[in-house]
Amino acid sequence: MVFRFLLLLVVLCVGSLQQGLADDGYRLWLKYDQLPDARLRKAWQAQAKGITVENGASPTLQTAAHELQLGLQGLLGRPVSVGASGGKGRIRLQVAADPTLGKEGYKISEQNGGLVVTGPTDAAVLYGCFALLRHVQTGQMPPTAALTSQPRVQYRMLNHWDNPNGTVERGYAGSSIWKWLELPEVIDPRYKDYARANASIGINGIVVNNVNASARYLTPEYLRKVAAVADVMRPYGIRVYLSVMWAAPKLIGGLSTSDPLDPKVRQWWKARTDEIYKTIPDFGGFLVKANSEGEPGPQDYGRNHADGANMLAESLGQHDGIVMWRAFVYKANSKGDRFKEAYEEFKPLDGKFAPKVLVQVKNGPIDFQSREPFHPLFGAMPRTPLVLEVQLTQEYLGFATHLVYLGPLIKECLESDTYSQGKGSTVAKVIDGTLEKHSISGIAGVANIGSDRNWTGHPVGQANWYAFGRLAWDHTLKSDAVAEEWTKMTLTREPQAVNTIAQVLNQSRNIYVRYTTPLGLHHIMGQSIHYGPEPWLEKSARPDWTSVYYHKADSIGLGFDRTAKGSNALSLYSPQVRQLWGNPATCPPDYLLWFHHVPWGQRLSTGNTLWDELTTRYYSGADSVLWMQQQWEQVKPKVDPEQHTDIASRLRIQHREALWWRDACVLYFQTYAKRPIPPSLTPPTRPLAEIKELVDIYQLR
Amino acid sequence: MVFRFLLLLVVLCVGSLQQGLADDGYRLWLKYDQLPDARLRKAWQAQAKGITVENGASPTLQTAAHELQLGLQGLLGRPVSVGASGGKGRIRLQVAADPTLGKEGYKISEQNGGLVVTGPTDAAVLYGCFALLRHVQTGQMPPTAALTSQPRVQYRMLNHWDNPNGTVERGYAGSSIWKWLELPEVIDPRYKDYARANASIGINGIVVNNVNASARYLTPEYLRKVAAVADVMRPYGIRVYLSVMWAAPKLIGGLSTSDPLDPKVRQWWKARTDEIYKTIPDFGGFLVKANSEGEPGPQDYGRNHADGANMLAESLGQHDGIVMWRAFVYKANSKGDRFKEAYEEFKPLDGKFAPKVLVQVKNGPIDFQSREPFHPLFGAMPRTPLVLEVQLTQEYLGFATHLVYLGPLIKECLESDTYSQGKGSTVAKVIDGTLEKHSISGIAGVANIGSDRNWTGHPVGQANWYAFGRLAWDHTLKSDAVAEEWTKMTLTREPQAVNTIAQVLNQSRNIYVRYTTPLGLHHIMGQSIHYGPEPWLEKSARPDWTSVYYHKADSIGLGFDRTAKGSNALSLYSPQVRQLWGNPATCPPDYLLWFHHVPWGQRLSTGNTLWDELTTRYYSGADSVLWMQQQWEQVKPKVDPEQHTDIASRLRIQHREALWWRDACVLYFQTYAKRPIPPSLTPPTRPLAEIKELVDIYQLR
Repeated sequence: MVFRFLLLLVVLCVGSLQQGLADDGYRLWLKYDQLPDARLRKAWQAQAKGITVENGASPTLQTAAHELQLGLQGLLGRPVSVGASGGKGRIRLQVAADPTLGKEGYKISEQNGGLVVTGPTDAAVLYGCFALLRHVQTGQMPPTAALTSQPRVQYRMLNHWDNPNGTVERGYAGSSIWKWLELPEVIDPRYKDYARANASIGINGIVVNNVNASARYLTPEYLRKVAAVADVMRPYGIRVYLSVMWAAPKLIGGLSTSDPLDPKVRQWWKARTDEIYKTIPDFGGFLVKANSEGEPGPQDYGRNHADGANMLAESLGQHDGIVMWRAFVYKANSKGDRFKEAYEEFKPLDGKFAPKVLVQVKNGPIDFQSREPFHPLFGAMPRTPLVLEVQLTQEYLGFATHLVYLGPLIKECLESDTYSQGKGSTVAKVIDGTLEKHSISGIAGVANIGSDRNWTGHPVGQANWYAFGRLAWDHTLKSDAVAEEWTKMTLTREPQAVNTIAQVLNQSRNIYVRYTTPLGLHHIMGQSIHYGPEPWLEKSARPDWTSVYYHKADSIGLGFDRTAKGSNALSLYSPQVRQLWGNPATCPPDYLLWFHHVPWGQRLSTGNTLWDELTTRYYSGADSVLWMQQQWEQVKPKVDPEQHTDIASRLRIQHREALWWRDACVLYFQTYAKRPIPPSLTPPTRPLAEIKELVDIYQLR
Repeated sequence: MVFRFLLLLVVLCVGSLQQGLADDGYRLWLKYDQLPDARLRKAWQAQAKGITVENGASPTLQTAAHELQLGLQGLLGRPVSVGASGGKGRIRLQVAADPTLGKEGYKISEQNGGLVVTGPTDAAVLYGCFALLRHVQTGQMPPTAALTSQPRVQYRMLNHWDNPNGTVERGYAGSSIWKWLELPEVIDPRYKDYARANASIGINGIVVNNVNASARYLTPEYLRKVAAVADVMRPYGIRVYLSVMWAAPKLIGGLSTSDPLDPKVRQWWKARTDEIYKTIPDFGGFLVKANSEGEPGPQDYGRNHADGANMLAESLGQHDGIVMWRAFVYKANSKGDRFKEAYEEFKPLDGKFAPKVLVQVKNGPIDFQSREPFHPLFGAMPRTPLVLEVQLTQEYLGFATHLVYLGPLIKECLESDTYSQGKGSTVAKVIDGTLEKHSISGIAGVANIGSDRNWTGHPVGQANWYAFGRLAWDHTLKSDAVAEEWTKMTLTREPQAVNTIAQVLNQSRNIYVRYTTPLGLHHIMGQSIHYGPEPWLEKSARPDWTSVYYHKADSIGLGFDRTAKGSNALSLYSPQVRQLWGNPATCPPDYLLWFHHVPWGQRLSTGNTLWDELTTRYYSGADSVLWMQQQWEQVKPKVDPEQHTDIASRLRIQHREALWWRDACVLYFQTYAKRPIPPSLTPPTRPLAEIKELVDIYQLR
């Protein structure tokens, strides 16, 4: 009878699995399906009979224990109890001071035949638990030596460019996950799953609203909503921050000015900040986009960025919060070079910012292009802690239909050598504070997260969220190792398939660059929505929103001359960088057209003329998408069918659009180069006019 | 050993249930959890050992069999086979001519001891299968007498106001379900589930894009995407339609005009239409918003709506498609009465439309208010088939946080008597074509569907989608019976709880009206996004977008005088209607302020003065939300916990916002009435200024 009952249950379980439980990607990398390797399971089962929480039951420790339990039960296929008591084969969670672990580091070690997860804080223990789960998930045996790790950067932030109406400024995965009209009463179960995912990779701060901010978030009505989100985040060690609208004192404070030096304005912000901390005691602080792209700011009152940032820092008073002030500013100047403008505005302010202020700088000087030289402000503001801002949402990298793993892009920036204090002055050392001895440090990723069931639209978008968190924690990790780790946790455990997929991921960013903006081309994408190619764009609301401003194609050649003969933007870099990039012969081909106007017939280090190299890269880039498709086809038996179909379908779009980019750019630049497509390549079969029409379609209302 | 294996499986199944299988609402009313009543299961098991498809295997018949199988397997808890062979206890699906069933009707009957689902078409059989499942799901025994039903309206349409960028014009459930940038390659599994849901309630047409249309949908690039959607819909008997942008010939056709009488324009549309049918052979036709709210239209060229509609109808040629031309037009005229404008533009065109044209009319003359008198065009255009357009998305009905079941609203309109051909000339008979002997008929619901996991934001929003479909099929169904049916299929099968929930649903719309716009107040909501109260709104981009235009509050009284002394909009109705509504003594209190400017001290049929009745209704409306909360609390043990928490949370918002509306309106109107709140009511504790501030917050960028 019991047997029949069980049989029935099994049938129903299997039935419901068949009905709707294909892998829809919702679980991200937190997949705790049973380990297939019985030997491995057995080894872990002996070590993980239960979980013992040694230091009482703070919400974060309870969360750590629960997450560990959830993961181990799934992975090992049997119950794992949680309790305060000890015993053999149990995993002990232990908060204990350990000077070797810093503020947030963890240690996983063996003591008396059992595993102990130690950390100086509850959150550190939580990180340790997720690290332990990762260890199990990626198929490793119980550790024999201690595993320790601590974050190199203190503020590891996700920035949401999410609007109060539920849209996401550059979102390609549905709408915002934040349901402001439903908060604070309705707590979407997703909030917790979002917190879990972030905590598992060490992200400890989130800015919930767009940098083009609404003042509404500073009102009591909205603070109650933000507080409800903060309540969900808190047990996961995540603090909530707000982007602020500079004109808030006027818009919602009833003041006649938002001048940062006006006492009434200062008083208003002070009172607002106190109110915020009354509502959200662990509030993290402010992110500010001011005097940028039409946003108001202190310059409206003849003040500078430091005046503004310092006023906000002052308003934070004794509260444990920070101000992240964005350096993404550029004036509409058809004669200038946007490349230089943030530098010119911010460099003179170095040393003028209050201690709680960090200046947030995009990885490159323009705007999240698929490849940019590192931003010249890195290394140029030694007295100011700089936050590195990278974009995970693929505004310029194919939205949610191009597979582009961003680990290499982030690493490329982090490993760039600014030479500001001699060789080895990498961007990583600037932003982690070690180079210039800062006590605070930060890194921010613009989130690619939305309401789509799989969170990121493209399933591989998850890898970018994941890689950002892992590299924010430890920028010395290798991006290919992170790709492999993510693949194992998310897509398949079969070694050959892991290898194949990781290779695709690792190549993907270079492939994307090749079929869209090879050799250092930049900002030649479709107007406004930034979709598809539009190198012919000559007119826009601002000169620096066109394409011709950047590529400077003419009958002679292609590229933006930023040497001393041109805009001299190169002068913003250290001499060593200047020397390397300033000479077309030594400038890496990947950066060539960023800095030089190169004649079409010029022979490059590759042996080809510029024209031949350019066209060849466009073609090989598009062809490489076919290679990605073939690789993906090979792993089919090892990947969940729903996931496989999804990615395979997106790879088909990617190839269609790679051809679109290739044909658009090759045909357009040919009108200047007046040279034939190299004979080894098959010329495009459609005329440029047809492609322009296609681009226009996507820009129709 | 087997036993232990089974035990393990059970543990894992239960485990995974705990992990993520709370009811997240995704399955809508298509929930096939096992029937708890063993007697019932047994009775059905005997009748449903398998499914026999008698007429080969068209995609739609296969779909019908598969859906029936899926449902029965879940409900009965055991396998149900599908095949071509017969046998005892199998359900036979049979396409067979039957003059009593019309074009789409079905019959479920017993023949030789087995059930047969018959219909004249594949789609009819599919409808029969879903009807059979509904029969089982709602806990009924196998039928002893035949169950037959056929739709009373031919075109049963959902209109999506979804934009190409993924936003939804009036959407409160995330983003659009249509992923245009991912189509045609990526087929989101949701598309099929959406089709299933629609087919299950008899919806047979969908307009996939916003009536404020992008011309891009008419390009080959987008038609391929639309075709991919159509491919998913086709097996479910659903045809795809497009909203068209009137200026398309200029925007994408390269013509200098979009004049419907210009031969080149006519030729362009003809060619476009042929192209569409080449891509989508069962394309349904066009929906048009022209010369409305700034949209282009034939009037831009001195032509009228009939010229435009007939030109499109002509372009359809021999293709089996229709044109639905919307009558939602109104000019910005501060002296006029918006109530009359659609009538005045369209009534003279009666008889001028080509046979393939239907004119689509909103239920009321203004714009989807929570209660409107029926649109005066119903009954006034006997030579033109009229489509009734109702709104399911709750633009003016509390978005996704107010529980408002719209069955009663739809029924109220359908049952309204136009008296156009004497007593009994209901709107239902106008739109189903029986009153005026039209051979085509239609009804359209503006969808409340989005990417939210549960499709509609508020779980009870699903009931509105459901009720629309059921009433579109058969407008004689009672809205409370539909509410009960939906509740049983979706929330609980426990009879007392079903009863309690259905009562809440049935009262909910009247409750909403009471705390927002009692006694016939209308259009006094927040500007632009239509959120919250804003009766004080005096200035907007157009006079008829303000609130004061509609409520006309002054020191004397309240309401819009639409009698002969006022705008005389009442003259648009038949004499019987005019007589009833034109006299404040006989006008139903629910419509009073739609037609009369009533003195504050005037005693109403209820015995109260206008002021006392108004305030009392605002208060009782808000209090009734507490009643809804209590009722909902009672059913807690009988409803899935995740669903229960969700709705309970939304009911808390609803009460908060009901008080917001109550206080805003009572305090604002009091500034005119200069009368005290009746002593039985507790006056609002916050000043009007505070409420205005709150309203402003929600309108900040």
